[in-house]
Amino acid sequence: MTDTLIDRRDLTFQLYDVLDTQSLLERDRFADHNRETFDAVIETADRMARETFANHNRDADRDEPRFENGEVTMLPEVKEGFDAYAQAGFIAGRYDESLGGMQLPESIMAACNGFFTAANPGTAGYPFLTTAAANLIRVFGNDEQRDAFLRPMLEGRFSGTMALTEPHAGSSLADIRTSAAPTDEGHYLIKGAKIYISGGEQSITDNIVHMVLARVRGAPAGVKGISLFIVPKYRLDDSGQPGERNGVSLAGLIHKLGYRGTTSTALSFGDDAPCHGYLVGEPNQGLKYMFQMMNEARVGVGFGAAVIGYRGYMHSLAYARDRTQGRQVSDKDPESPQIPIIEHADVRRMLLAQKAYCEGALGLCLYGARLMDDQQTHPDPEKRAAAGTLLDLLTPVIKAWPSEYGTKANDLAIQVYGGAGYTREYPVEQCWRDNRLNPIHEGTNGIQAMDLLGRKIWQNKSEGLQLLIKEIQTDLEAATEGRRQQWALSLSETLQRAVKVTQELGGALMNEGPEPVLANAHCYLTLLGHITVAWIWLRQANAAAQYLGNHGAELTASDRAFYEGKMQAAQYFFHWELPTVAQDLMLLERRDDTCLNMQPDWF
Amino acid sequence: MTDTLIDRRDLTFQLYDVLDTQSLLERDRFADHNRETFDAVIETADRMARETFANHNRDADRDEPRFENGEVTMLPEVKEGFDAYAQAGFIAGRYDESLGGMQLPESIMAACNGFFTAANPGTAGYPFLTTAAANLIRVFGNDEQRDAFLRPMLEGRFSGTMALTEPHAGSSLADIRTSAAPTDEGHYLIKGAKIYISGGEQSITDNIVHMVLARVRGAPAGVKGISLFIVPKYRLDDSGQPGERNGVSLAGLIHKLGYRGTTSTALSFGDDAPCHGYLVGEPNQGLKYMFQMMNEARVGVGFGAAVIGYRGYMHSLAYARDRTQGRQVSDKDPESPQIPIIEHADVRRMLLAQKAYCEGALGLCLYGARLMDDQQTHPDPEKRAAAGTLLDLLTPVIKAWPSEYGTKANDLAIQVYGGAGYTREYPVEQCWRDNRLNPIHEGTNGIQAMDLLGRKIWQNKSEGLQLLIKEIQTDLEAATEGRRQQWALSLSETLQRAVKVTQELGGALMNEGPEPVLANAHCYLTLLGHITVAWIWLRQANAAAQYLGNHGAELTASDRAFYEGKMQAAQYFFHWELPTVAQDLMLLERRDDTCLNMQPDWF
Repeated sequence: MTDTLIDRRDLTFQLYDVLDTQSLLERDRFADHNRETFDAVIETADRMARETFANHNRDADRDEPRFENGEVTMLPEVKEGFDAYAQAGFIAGRYDESLGGMQLPESIMAACNGFFTAANPGTAGYPFLTTAAANLIRVFGNDEQRDAFLRPMLEGRFSGTMALTEPHAGSSLADIRTSAAPTDEGHYLIKGAKIYISGGEQSITDNIVHMVLARVRGAPAGVKGISLFIVPKYRLDDSGQPGERNGVSLAGLIHKLGYRGTTSTALSFGDDAPCHGYLVGEPNQGLKYMFQMMNEARVGVGFGAAVIGYRGYMHSLAYARDRTQGRQVSDKDPESPQIPIIEHADVRRMLLAQKAYCEGALGLCLYGARLMDDQQTHPDPEKRAAAGTLLDLLTPVIKAWPSEYGTKANDLAIQVYGGAGYTREYPVEQCWRDNRLNPIHEGTNGIQAMDLLGRKIWQNKSEGLQLLIKEIQTDLEAATEGRRQQWALSLSETLQRAVKVTQELGGALMNEGPEPVLANAHCYLTLLGHITVAWIWLRQANAAAQYLGNHGAELTASDRAFYEGKMQAAQYFFHWELPTVAQDLMLLERRDDTCLNMQPDWF
Repeated sequence: MTDTLIDRRDLTFQLYDVLDTQSLLERDRFADHNRETFDAVIETADRMARETFANHNRDADRDEPRFENGEVTMLPEVKEGFDAYAQAGFIAGRYDESLGGMQLPESIMAACNGFFTAANPGTAGYPFLTTAAANLIRVFGNDEQRDAFLRPMLEGRFSGTMALTEPHAGSSLADIRTSAAPTDEGHYLIKGAKIYISGGEQSITDNIVHMVLARVRGAPAGVKGISLFIVPKYRLDDSGQPGERNGVSLAGLIHKLGYRGTTSTALSFGDDAPCHGYLVGEPNQGLKYMFQMMNEARVGVGFGAAVIGYRGYMHSLAYARDRTQGRQVSDKDPESPQIPIIEHADVRRMLLAQKAYCEGALGLCLYGARLMDDQQTHPDPEKRAAAGTLLDLLTPVIKAWPSEYGTKANDLAIQVYGGAGYTREYPVEQCWRDNRLNPIHEGTNGIQAMDLLGRKIWQNKSEGLQLLIKEIQTDLEAATEGRRQQWALSLSETLQRAVKVTQELGGALMNEGPEPVLANAHCYLTLLGHITVAWIWLRQANAAAQYLGNHGAELTASDRAFYEGKMQAAQYFFHWELPTVAQDLMLLERRDDTCLNMQPDWF
């Protein structure tokens, strides 16, 4: 067990050496900041996450929220952690100073939030949902709604949820049935049932603001008839304080295998009492609005998966340095002392795979956060648009890849621990359980794959893919020496095959319709994910090689070890991981129809 | 949620059409049996597993054993299940009639036990450990020990454990420290501590018989100084009944993430009271004896992993047929009814992968059980020896492959369920948690890989590998038509590359020592595992094709669907799985040194 949540040195390297985050300081929005304020806020996040989140991570997993008399009881430490997070200004961290925010870049806020999720994913869920819901009101709400709900949310007095899923409509939002009937007083009456609503009830904040998808009576069928409503747990009185109870009630808690500290709720709207809802923006535009929140949440899920993976890696690394067991295979003397298990090559394999997955996933997600920054604040409008296009394309990858490989990393962390790994006396099995939600919630990875290959890749004549290729090209050209040259060559070849197969699939989509092509969408998602993460590793290797080259003589042993580790992890990714997409490429190229042609009654 | 533990039709196909289990009836040992008795005992196991094991699977997971006042309290249903299993004669199922056994083949007993583990792995742990410990006493114990302990164990009055691991010595048995001091009365005094001892305490049986590894004072260091002792919880009185409490006591329970119904214990020996132990066989031969039990247990772990995977597959298949969600991607009409999710190709991919993994793993394990039968009862002594050699070689594969791919199957089962999958309201997350122990206990898969590539593959001039190749060859030659011909070709090519790389690795072992070769042992384990399971699938495909060919005209729709499903799952394995070993082959062929050269301080 280690205190380290995310290796600070790695984070500094990724933010500054690889992503040049300090260049954001040139932008007007961040004029009041400097490298010191960035570092100070990260330092605060790291410390607070350890002190107020990590302190009850295990207890909140063991002693999960309970449903008693229509209310939720939960550990008081969860509220203490939430309040500390809010009071430190993190909920409003990225918002305008005029809203009480710190006007921090997304990149820095993402890094900060990484510590909190690594420390305690269950408790982190509440502020994260709140900030995402708040952003929806900020962008699409009217002034009155912003006044009423946004500020208390940013201050942490109210929390937020996203209430999309219904018992019969999880992935298929087109089928939601919750209804909204207009009234003469301006509000709507909401009626229906929602399920799997994270944070839908809790004992943390004075009020809960549900962002609810519902249909106004008479709206068109399908996604074109969905509207977005604000549905508070308590209606506000004239002074803006929580007053009368609104007709949204907790039908029950769902018991998850991970993120157990975050309540997952079944909610009923308008069952026993009238449930007021306030329309956000225009009717029938709800799904479009909600997609802003969902895309943000998807990037957040990827980030969470990356850092939960990272946390498990830190634990297993500390364990492998400490735990002695066995000897080198060539040492036949049973009286020689046992060695730390990190001395066994197979243990190093499992640690190196974790390092390659998690530091790669972290790099991918930080890059995603940087794209948000560029989309929002790049001085050049073309660059802003380009960043948005690239972020759109990569969102399914950022959601899915870390969730799959972060969980795989946690699986390896358990394996490094051996028998201790599967016991609840040690911390890594919880990481693994927590992370297992991430390939599912906010859109299963199957949905992400369909989104990528069925839609994102073709938008604006595949401009996103073109932009990605251009970005990759820059780093391929910078990889001019030694091992990196080899790695660049294999990435380049893989990329070329991927582009070719993309064109073929595009043709097939036109000629044969979507079913036969999308049947193997999962392979395409893996392919693009591995290519992107290989590129992220090439960037890290380029930065590491540059540092090693520039500071050759005066390097400390610890510096040298850090950069050599980066190079070796990059080598692991290029030797052990990237080549595995040959299989995905082959299945895509020959349009393998095994799954497509499998008949339901053949199972 | 489904009642089906293992598809009976599949089991019948695998036992009789593929493995020709009925031919065992020609052997003297099974003269009292016939196909009907085999089927009746399987039917009993299936029914009893559902009635007395599945009934409390979830409760025993939720309400795990507790340590109170030095004793363990647990759900009474666990004892009821254990007793029912024992009373039906299953503990003694494979033993001689003279011992009260049913003299059933290992193949049939393995199949029977499959139902119990699929129904409730936690409860199944107790009788399985008992039968394995009993077998150790049967083979290596003296008459007195057999009289005293074997019969009550076979009757289910006493249970058994294997007490190997110590806090500082898990994988490294050479380092165990528990000591045994001889006394004039013939028994030894045992002193030490053991940990992770499954079933080390419980409230099921009148006595617990620990099979304990310890060192007689003055014994040589390392594995050559380990002896095996029987250490009962209660010493026996003159009438053979449990009498005085022996000095072995429960120091604490360990809390696992799965198999929560099976206690995992820390035991102390001789701490507060003298602990009597009875030497089994010769001193310093303990590890050799224990390896019989461990090898048996390893095959059992593989079997358990296969059927827990299978159980999750059955659940997710039933769910996918029942749950409606979304529409075909080409159907843009939001008012058309939602379709069962099995209609989505990506869901079929996840089901087909599970089918390929779990029916393949089941086939592999049943083949292992058949090798035990042939080793024990084949009329031809050469065939008996050959079966033993092949079983030795394949034991690490049978342990590791199902544990890795069964767990992967459970991961896919969760994914098929979507959000429901990660909740404890649905059954698959428990399967996944239960299965996660299997890649670790009874020797981590890393240990299995070292055992395979460091030892097993070279034994008797690689006779085991030669035998395996010969077996595979037979089925390659039978695959003469259509798809099977293609599959045989790709298996044959992969096998040839594997043989070549094995030779190269053998040379390298001689020239460079074990470290550089064994660093990538995990790749070799995966390679041999995939080759073996591909062969198992080719056997199934050959049998299915034969049936389809022989019964073309009179096939019912359900028959045809079953065999077509077998063919398609085989195709999945050959198209989607077998080619992935190209990566393992490449890493082995070029002797990739990434993990070997990674330095501990570079992490």
